[in-house]
Amino acid sequence: MSRVAIFMGSISDEEKVRPCADVLSDLGIDYTFTVTSAHRTPERTARLVDELEAKGCQVFICAAGMAAHLAGAVAAKTTRPVIGIPISASALGGMDALLSTVQMPPGFPVATVALDKAGARNAAWMAAQILALSDAELAEKLRAAREDFKASVERAAEKLNA
Amino acid sequence: MSRVAIFMGSISDEEKVRPCADVLSDLGIDYTFTVTSAHRTPERTARLVDELEAKGCQVFICAAGMAAHLAGAVAAKTTRPVIGIPISASALGGMDALLSTVQMPPGFPVATVALDKAGARNAAWMAAQILALSDAELAEKLRAAREDFKASVERAAEKLNA
Amino acid sequence: MSRVAIFMGSISDEEKVRPCADVLSDLGIDYTFTVTSAHRTPERTARLVDELEAKGCQVFICAAGMAAHLAGAVAAKTTRPVIGIPISASALGGMDALLSTVQMPPGFPVATVALDKAGARNAAWMAAQILALSDAELAEKLRAAREDFKASVERAAEKLNA
Amino acid sequence: MSRVAIFMGSISDEEKVRPCADVLSDLGIDYTFTVTSAHRTPERTARLVDELEAKGCQVFICAAGMAAHLAGAVAAKTTRPVIGIPISASALGGMDALLSTVQMPPGFPVATVALDKAGARNAAWMAAQILALSDAELAEKLRAAREDFKASVERAAEKLNA
Amino acid sequence: MSRVAIFMGSISDEEKVRPCADVLSDLGIDYTFTVTSAHRTPERTARLVDELEAKGCQVFICAAGMAAHLAGAVAAKTTRPVIGIPISASALGGMDALLSTVQMPPGFPVATVALDKAGARNAAWMAAQILALSDAELAEKLRAAREDFKASVERAAEKLNA
Amino acid sequence: MSRVAIFMGSISDEEKVRPCADVLSDLGIDYTFTVTSAHRTPERTARLVDELEAKGCQVFICAAGMAAHLAGAVAAKTTRPVIGIPISASALGGMDALLSTVQMPPGFPVATVALDKAGARNAAWMAAQILALSDAELAEKLRAAREDFKASVERAAEKLNA
Amino acid sequence: MSRVAIFMGSISDEEKVRPCADVLSDLGIDYTFTVTSAHRTPERTARLVDELEAKGCQVFICAAGMAAHLAGAVAAKTTRPVIGIPISASALGGMDALLSTVQMPPGFPVATVALDKAGARNAAWMAAQILALSDAELAEKLRAAREDFKASVERAAEKLNA
Amino acid sequence: MSRVAIFMGSISDEEKVRPCADVLSDLGIDYTFTVTSAHRTPERTARLVDELEAKGCQVFICAAGMAAHLAGAVAAKTTRPVIGIPISASALGGMDALLSTVQMPPGFPVATVALDKAGARNAAWMAAQILALSDAELAEKLRAAREDFKASVERAAEKLNA
Repeated sequence: MSRVAIFMGSISDEEKVRPCADVLSDLGIDYTFTVTSAHRTPERTARLVDELEAKGCQVFICAAGMAAHLAGAVAAKTTRPVIGIPISASALGGMDALLSTVQMPPGFPVATVALDKAGARNAAWMAAQILALSDAELAEKLRAAREDFKASVERAAEKLNA
Repeated sequence: MSRVAIFMGSISDEEKVRPCADVLSDLGIDYTFTVTSAHRTPERTARLVDELEAKGCQVFICAAGMAAHLAGAVAAKTTRPVIGIPISASALGGMDALLSTVQMPPGFPVATVALDKAGARNAAWMAAQILALSDAELAEKLRAAREDFKASVERAAEKLNA
Repeated sequence: MSRVAIFMGSISDEEKVRPCADVLSDLGIDYTFTVTSAHRTPERTARLVDELEAKGCQVFICAAGMAAHLAGAVAAKTTRPVIGIPISASALGGMDALLSTVQMPPGFPVATVALDKAGARNAAWMAAQILALSDAELAEKLRAAREDFKASVERAAEKLNA
Repeated sequence: MSRVAIFMGSISDEEKVRPCADVLSDLGIDYTFTVTSAHRTPERTARLVDELEAKGCQVFICAAGMAAHLAGAVAAKTTRPVIGIPISASALGGMDALLSTVQMPPGFPVATVALDKAGARNAAWMAAQILALSDAELAEKLRAAREDFKASVERAAEKLNA
Repeated sequence: MSRVAIFMGSISDEEKVRPCADVLSDLGIDYTFTVTSAHRTPERTARLVDELEAKGCQVFICAAGMAAHLAGAVAAKTTRPVIGIPISASALGGMDALLSTVQMPPGFPVATVALDKAGARNAAWMAAQILALSDAELAEKLRAAREDFKASVERAAEKLNA
Repeated sequence: MSRVAIFMGSISDEEKVRPCADVLSDLGIDYTFTVTSAHRTPERTARLVDELEAKGCQVFICAAGMAAHLAGAVAAKTTRPVIGIPISASALGGMDALLSTVQMPPGFPVATVALDKAGARNAAWMAAQILALSDAELAEKLRAAREDFKASVERAAEKLNA
Repeated sequence: MSRVAIFMGSISDEEKVRPCADVLSDLGIDYTFTVTSAHRTPERTARLVDELEAKGCQVFICAAGMAAHLAGAVAAKTTRPVIGIPISASALGGMDALLSTVQMPPGFPVATVALDKAGARNAAWMAAQILALSDAELAEKLRAAREDFKASVERAAEKLNA
Repeated sequence: MSRVAIFMGSISDEEKVRPCADVLSDLGIDYTFTVTSAHRTPERTARLVDELEAKGCQVFICAAGMAAHLAGAVAAKTTRPVIGIPISASALGGMDALLSTVQMPPGFPVATVALDKAGARNAAWMAAQILALSDAELAEKLRAAREDFKASVERAAEKLNA
């Protein structure tokens, strides 16, 4: 059963979104990873939300570029948490996707994270943090991951001064 | 019968969108002017598009602020021309609404006009220009309006130097 | 017991953040609402996170303007979900707070919502959506709220054409 | 007979504008594709608009970068619909062309689409949507194209999970 | 005989452009100050450039807001120097007018000055500097004005510490 | 004798500024092309302005990137026209240089042109336009150049449709 | 003897810069507060730097708006630390002053602080921090001030929940 | 004994930050160069500040990208001068890091320098300028460096015209 769904608006975003799936895998969180578009496949998007929600999906992650409406479209359909990853996919450096994702009107929040790969990873971490509220094992993994982050900085520091 | 529909995402945008309706009225174009939201009332939005299209509505005008998804949602639903008016409704000066409206992915264009009242007027003019392709009387009105625009500049010039 | 904490970086942000508390109150969610600063009171911030987390606080909401580090500082301290509300508090129209809040590095996500009051409301809604994953009654309230949003649009539409 | 004219301000924009011509070709819409500049050849631009309009051209598409005045110059000359494609052609990432194209004063709308290739395609789609209002065969093609867009997403989704 | 022409695209810009005329008056430079639009009155604009140039006008100053094409339109018509004043006239804070004015393609320069009143004054100063190349008396006035600027700073400094 | 001076703030800008010298050469205008910095060599900058002005230099062109103060420093020193070329030389895409060049305070205008190479060419054209006010032969060259610009567009158009 | 100099480019910036002087006064640091301009009074600026430096001034604070060159001009003149306060003084929201102040080329740093009043206060705090490196009494005051900042947050928190 | 500490938030910033260390080395200033993160290693960051301060470190230089909180975190911990280098590390061109670094609230200044390598060099120069207030030998080196900067411009000028 997928506890998390990762939707991306275009297959061309795959490279930037893949790290989201990788982090979820590393944390042992089942997920569905697919392509669906707010504009090209609105019915598919709505159907996937319904189906996944019915099957117990808890968190929806949506990655899209340009006028990034996907997260908003999903947020309009479910009251489960929706996380948005803005993808830089035009000459505007991702500002279009960022503002289209974050500036949602009252009642329909999208939990927006950073642009591109950094954001893809953070979407997974945020999803995990949400799930960990009722999953003590996952919460423990998250605390352990913090130690790993710390250790990686310390190793880098040692190497720098070696 | 409404040849044009004007949707705005929030009643709070009314003052900025009203000039759109005024221009259509002046040109004798029947229109429907209503509130509907991409996020709060997605079904209503879809239903209105279907109903209005069935009744012969030719052009859809959508005004929205912040993460302005309304025009995109309508564009995903119809192959009739959709015109987008970005509304400045946050501290970001309307850049959010502009980018959310104009940066649509291939296949789902939104004919975006200027921000706020200037854009509201231009959405009406663009709708009229589209309708005038098969309405000789309206085309004549548009040509006459150009004379009025010219005359208003000349009058302003005379007054300035009076 | 507070299930949600609302921190704001400065008392001068109160008016913009208050709607966050109002939405939580309306939903019957207990919360703590206080002032604490990433820079002026880092120890207080860290202590509050520890104390509140120990008492069962599930979600942290942080509102700050300018170089808005508060949400990031809290995110560094806890693995519970942190929601960031960027506040426009300089001549830059809130772009400073938005980028300082959303562009977090991998591992330390901040679920960023819209600027100012719209974002304050959405932070509360997002917190509620997270809590509702394990609170069926709250989930029901959220679904009901969606009906209220829908009804408010329909009422506005009726009034517009009355 | 050309039902659509595609003007680009500089031959250096050809690669980014070419997809506009390709979409029109695919839809079986006759078009004229040429270079003409608001500043270097204002008379040529004006003459082309007159000639093409006289021969029945219904929609003008203008692509330009930097201080992109071409669409505005054409819009000042005709009351037929003018679609603007902003081209990113400076270090500013296309923001210059976008604002120069979209922020037209009342009475002289330019239906602005996305930057660069995505916008070039959408200019063609918008032109087709306008023409389809009085061309049932084209309207049918547009509806069919929507199915193709949908199918391409579904194929991508299948391939992703294969 | 007018040595300088000041065109503004809209009478609504008058308050911001007026300081340009005031500086020219103070310097004893004859000028023509009128309203003409790149889009509403392109023929009038072209005719005014021709007439004024024929009568010996040396420098054209153009003030416009939004998609500010006026200076570019004049620059396309004359090889005399054209100075552009971007006017902030939308929610975008004048960035639209600035980029539309300054980012001209090779061969058609617009000497762009600051936004709004500061720019209006500077357009006049720049025109005077150009004329002063062949007007020794005016050159002397410009040097004297520098002394006045200096004195005004010194007086302000004295008053501050009085 | 140099009628125009081209200053660039750093030798690393040479490639972007070179087209300015090329255009002046093509027009047969003598110029001085050198490196001098507002910050590294303020005395050299001031001395060069004095010397060149004394020798009859009429127009100063200044190219600089980042916090581009060079044009302003020259403008503070002379009442001859100063043209500024903003150079994109940081991750900010040249917005830093553009704003630092164009937003000069009243009394000290910098005639700002486009970013980078397009601006470098236009600085030369603007200088030529200024000199042509008292140089009939140069004025004739400028009119002829307009024909060349026109012809180049027509050739490109022919080639496109060949 | 003034240990700190505060220069502002225009008397119109006084209200925004005054808090800088107030903080220095509160800390018992002698300062000179005057108006001088990079462009209107370059000699005065240079002379003041020389005179103040000769008299033992350790830190220069420069506040300016628009193309804010004042801090850079002072930085070019002295090797003592220069702090820059960008002032929002145009429709661009201070982005012009910020970039003109901070983006200095290698060798000529300007220690840039926040825009407007917040930055004015911080310029004073930064100056004090620099002076405190060799002034134990001042260092103690700075540590005490941190306690005051902390207490003010705690008082605000108490009042909020009273 | 390190008089200066250089912290960078991520080892991936090393190439851009390295010039900071190089300038300090050239000036004979002892420094510590390490990696530490505001979010991944807040305790390490705090401990390093305490330790280095105790050992006599006078100036802290912090380089970070995206939501660059590192300099602010250090500024919250010490009253010694903190210099911030914004690193461009996302599609937003460094605007995120710049605003996150410079827009600090009153009482906690970060002396912000330019983006990336130029800023890295300037952070070192600013640190040296601060230390030189009580180090006559270093002050002399800084004055000599100014001569080198001047000479490098003059050499470049000679080479350009050779």
